[in-house]
Amino acid sequence: MLQTTTVAEYLFTRLKQLGVGAVHGIPGDYNLRLLDYVVPSGLLWVGNTNELNAGYAADGYARINGLGALITTYGVGELSAINAIACAFTERAPVIHIVGTPPRNTQSSRLMVHHTLGDGDYRHFGQMQSHVTVAQTNLLDPRTAPQQIDQVLQQCMIHCRPVYIEVPLDIVSASVVAENLTHEIAVPRDVPNPAYDVILDSVLERMYSAERPVILVDGETRALGILDHVERMVSSTVWPTFTTTSGKGLINETLLNVHGMYRGSFADATTKAFIDGSDLALYFGPHLSSTNTYNWTGVPQTAAAICFSWDGIKIGDVLHRDISPQYALTQILRKLDLKRLKKSDSCPTFPRGQLLSFSEVSGDESIKQDKVWRLLNSFLRPGDIVFGETGTAGYGVREMLLPEHTRLFTPITWLSIGYMLPACQGAALAQRELMASSKYHEIEGARTVLFIGDGSFQMTAQELATIIRHDLNVVVFLINNDGYTIERCIHGMKKGYNDISTWRYLKAPSFFGAPEDAFTASARTYGELEQVLKQEKLANGTGVRMVEIYMDRYDAPAGPLTMLLDRQKEAKGVDL
Amino acid sequence: MLQTTTVAEYLFTRLKQLGVGAVHGIPGDYNLRLLDYVVPSGLLWVGNTNELNAGYAADGYARINGLGALITTYGVGELSAINAIACAFTERAPVIHIVGTPPRNTQSSRLMVHHTLGDGDYRHFGQMQSHVTVAQTNLLDPRTAPQQIDQVLQQCMIHCRPVYIEVPLDIVSASVVAENLTHEIAVPRDVPNPAYDVILDSVLERMYSAERPVILVDGETRALGILDHVERMVSSTVWPTFTTTSGKGLINETLLNVHGMYRGSFADATTKAFIDGSDLALYFGPHLSSTNTYNWTGVPQTAAAICFSWDGIKIGDVLHRDISPQYALTQILRKLDLKRLKKSDSCPTFPRGQLLSFSEVSGDESIKQDKVWRLLNSFLRPGDIVFGETGTAGYGVREMLLPEHTRLFTPITWLSIGYMLPACQGAALAQRELMASSKYHEIEGARTVLFIGDGSFQMTAQELATIIRHDLNVVVFLINNDGYTIERCIHGMKKGYNDISTWRYLKAPSFFGAPEDAFTASARTYGELEQVLKQEKLANGTGVRMVEIYMDRYDAPAGPLTMLLDRQKEAKGVDL
Repeated sequence: MLQTTTVAEYLFTRLKQLGVGAVHGIPGDYNLRLLDYVVPSGLLWVGNTNELNAGYAADGYARINGLGALITTYGVGELSAINAIACAFTERAPVIHIVGTPPRNTQSSRLMVHHTLGDGDYRHFGQMQSHVTVAQTNLLDPRTAPQQIDQVLQQCMIHCRPVYIEVPLDIVSASVVAENLTHEIAVPRDVPNPAYDVILDSVLERMYSAERPVILVDGETRALGILDHVERMVSSTVWPTFTTTSGKGLINETLLNVHGMYRGSFADATTKAFIDGSDLALYFGPHLSSTNTYNWTGVPQTAAAICFSWDGIKIGDVLHRDISPQYALTQILRKLDLKRLKKSDSCPTFPRGQLLSFSEVSGDESIKQDKVWRLLNSFLRPGDIVFGETGTAGYGVREMLLPEHTRLFTPITWLSIGYMLPACQGAALAQRELMASSKYHEIEGARTVLFIGDGSFQMTAQELATIIRHDLNVVVFLINNDGYTIERCIHGMKKGYNDISTWRYLKAPSFFGAPEDAFTASARTYGELEQVLKQEKLANGTGVRMVEIYMDRYDAPAGPLTMLLDRQKEAKGVDL
Repeated sequence: MLQTTTVAEYLFTRLKQLGVGAVHGIPGDYNLRLLDYVVPSGLLWVGNTNELNAGYAADGYARINGLGALITTYGVGELSAINAIACAFTERAPVIHIVGTPPRNTQSSRLMVHHTLGDGDYRHFGQMQSHVTVAQTNLLDPRTAPQQIDQVLQQCMIHCRPVYIEVPLDIVSASVVAENLTHEIAVPRDVPNPAYDVILDSVLERMYSAERPVILVDGETRALGILDHVERMVSSTVWPTFTTTSGKGLINETLLNVHGMYRGSFADATTKAFIDGSDLALYFGPHLSSTNTYNWTGVPQTAAAICFSWDGIKIGDVLHRDISPQYALTQILRKLDLKRLKKSDSCPTFPRGQLLSFSEVSGDESIKQDKVWRLLNSFLRPGDIVFGETGTAGYGVREMLLPEHTRLFTPITWLSIGYMLPACQGAALAQRELMASSKYHEIEGARTVLFIGDGSFQMTAQELATIIRHDLNVVVFLINNDGYTIERCIHGMKKGYNDISTWRYLKAPSFFGAPEDAFTASARTYGELEQVLKQEKLANGTGVRMVEIYMDRYDAPAGPLTMLLDRQKEAKGVDL
């Protein structure tokens, strides 16, 4: 007998099969019937405070879990979320954006109903979404709905980018054939080709002949699904390894041959000379934005580089398409004869980041950006997810030495301030689900730790309520430096447009519904910060905890921000 | 000698000339240099908490002031605001959306910089914005920049809809010819045509022969710029006059021949029979969405109707294009011989909305939707701007009898919840500016009063901080009914997805930075509400004041919501 199910159940069963445990979003009248099926399908309904935040949260969830989902309503809901979808597109978060749309009759009659622009054209929003999603589908026909769903989900997985599914209100409960559900959706395998072997053998030869090899791990390594391969490469070759901004947190920084971030023109001379002088740079998962690469100075020399990217394998300046990095690395690792690698004695001692202890600073001193990150470093422990929001925090967290299995969210390319707090909700939820199902490196009790500036916090503050509502294990360090310091660094250091309103930030947990005894504390000096960090409830409590750290509005971590700030300070004649 | 100025100064001088006093928005690195020119041009920089809110605020400002402006940054900023721009497009708020974009070199080199999708294509966002704006321009050439600016501003004024202006970072300070600034930008005049006179004479004849005439004032009356004409028509003919949802607050409800809102199928029998039986319905500014017209039942019969709309003048089902309502009404009012209008004795007594006094209710009784709006009515006074957010509040405020010069914001078509709080910031600022320049009906001390549900409040709560920061005269009545009651009415009355997190709402003013003695109060019973409303500080205080009113989660004002709710309550077998 023909097994049937409904469109909604088909869709949600697929999500469940693919490892999605929770759906983010906001109810709206065009999606309510769809929402009827979420919880019965075994998924958690998160229920965010607004759609932009829901989108950011689904993104954070997706980057930790491997896939995330978001449900919004037609027009008003989906457009509020579109900036989050653009973020997910740019930085490769596989988010399935499901939109409940008006009934098919309403659409085909071009009726002027609410949540439309009033011109009878129901395709505006789909067209807008197509710019920021890698595949789109509109479920107008129950006969083809299962295949349509499967196709976009596969595209989401292949490209690790958001997709867009429109579900008209009146098709939600339509019957569809359930048969496909017995087959898994998967990323298609590479088809072997003798030509590929020749290329990969040449990579191996380059590896065997390398005198000064280096490995650079960039952010697309995650999206390409080659983290395990790269980890094996790093640990088996024991070659000096660095990361880019978005690569940080993807590879175990506690390994002796992993020397932290490569900052290009901002790097120390030893590291820069070594990478510039290397004769082979295995460059995994390049993400070539200015912000990720210190204006493209933080990448290897082309002649030395072999890039494993979305386009294929690039040796020097010759790109070989159609060989996926996953396939290539599998083959290379299988064939690699470690004994043939040259033993290098010439590896210099790279200056590693240093932790700082409170005994090395004066307790009375005001907290400053140059030291605080290395002091906060001691708070982290294996399995934590660390967020450094765009702003001084995003640069500060780069100075931290991350414990094993610690994932890091830093500004990569989209840099939408306000992203990190909601993304933190999604990531913390995924982390909890993974721990609950023992899929989290045998770690329990890991936390999600957010470092965020006051200006960014104001953008999406209400998502703290969702963190509280789901009792997620989140510690928020709020940097109160009286405005948009990152913008002050760039331009208009003392201009009023970089000021923000003054909030009583530590009232946030109580306002947003946390128990009245939720942990909050503030610190203006190193001594105060030391006392705060010692509190058992901060490190090992449950639910949200919040610490307000006061810093100067014209203070930034060393690096590009300080450089920009100094330029403005020096330009005395110029109106700041 | 050739007078020159900069692109930025040209643009902001135009805004100032057109009566814009304040610019909403958020700084971002691509717009910082543009922001340098805002305050020196004599404009107030508002500085909102996020871009969606800034967009809503600019919309609220525009609907009160006549024109509003918003500055965001490329990509992240403008996309966060796009839902607000869609709202402004749909409901006709003339918002000038100015976006600071990357330098022209960066764009033409297709560099992968931050705030881009990373594919080198800089046109994605402009294409997305074109769906929700009536004109777009990209200032790439200083020689044409002045004309480009003038053209889109004129389109904004003609259509009363948002426009989109891209300003690359490196053109901000480029020199342009200033000459155009000596000529005003204005909506082009109608070109007279003898054929129009024939048509307008036929309208006059219909007016003279009408036995049972009626006037219906709809929301586009504002955007069409015919409020004064319509007011003269209403007061001179003394014909029975009604409004639609979005027409309410546009015409003086205290006039004896203005009988409040026409609710179509939800109207009382007397009103419905009268309008259905009228032989002439002058229908001003139709806005024909389902939500504005009680599913199209709240409009006059076609045969009787003469519509004054964006398309022209429609008599019965014959549309005469190219005659603007403004032109038509000017001519009609000039020619109209009031003595030739028939005297009607047959006008029934329409049931007017009734105020309710606290002496008519029991002080111990819980506050309910059926009475509270008529009790709250006494709080309003001339010149107030009243907001009823989408939800029960949006229906509740329709029951209020508005004092003279009271403008009302109700859900019209876009219905994006979260809109009203930021829009309230914009409207209150415009109100203050108008009062300060004595352009507000000789009224001083008018307030902006927001009625909003808890779910809506959560969406954009942080904009309360901007209201506080600018010390705007805003009273917030927050309806705490434990979730999205409007969605409960539509579907899933008891479903978890219509629940929200529980906040301590009255902590909002303090959290968002108001003085610690800012007025807050709560009421669960009519007695408590009466006491609260008596407080001098609530009615006549300054800055933000907030009242939390508790109501039942399954309670809604009479009308469509109650009908939907009752249907669900009756469907006993159905899983709610």
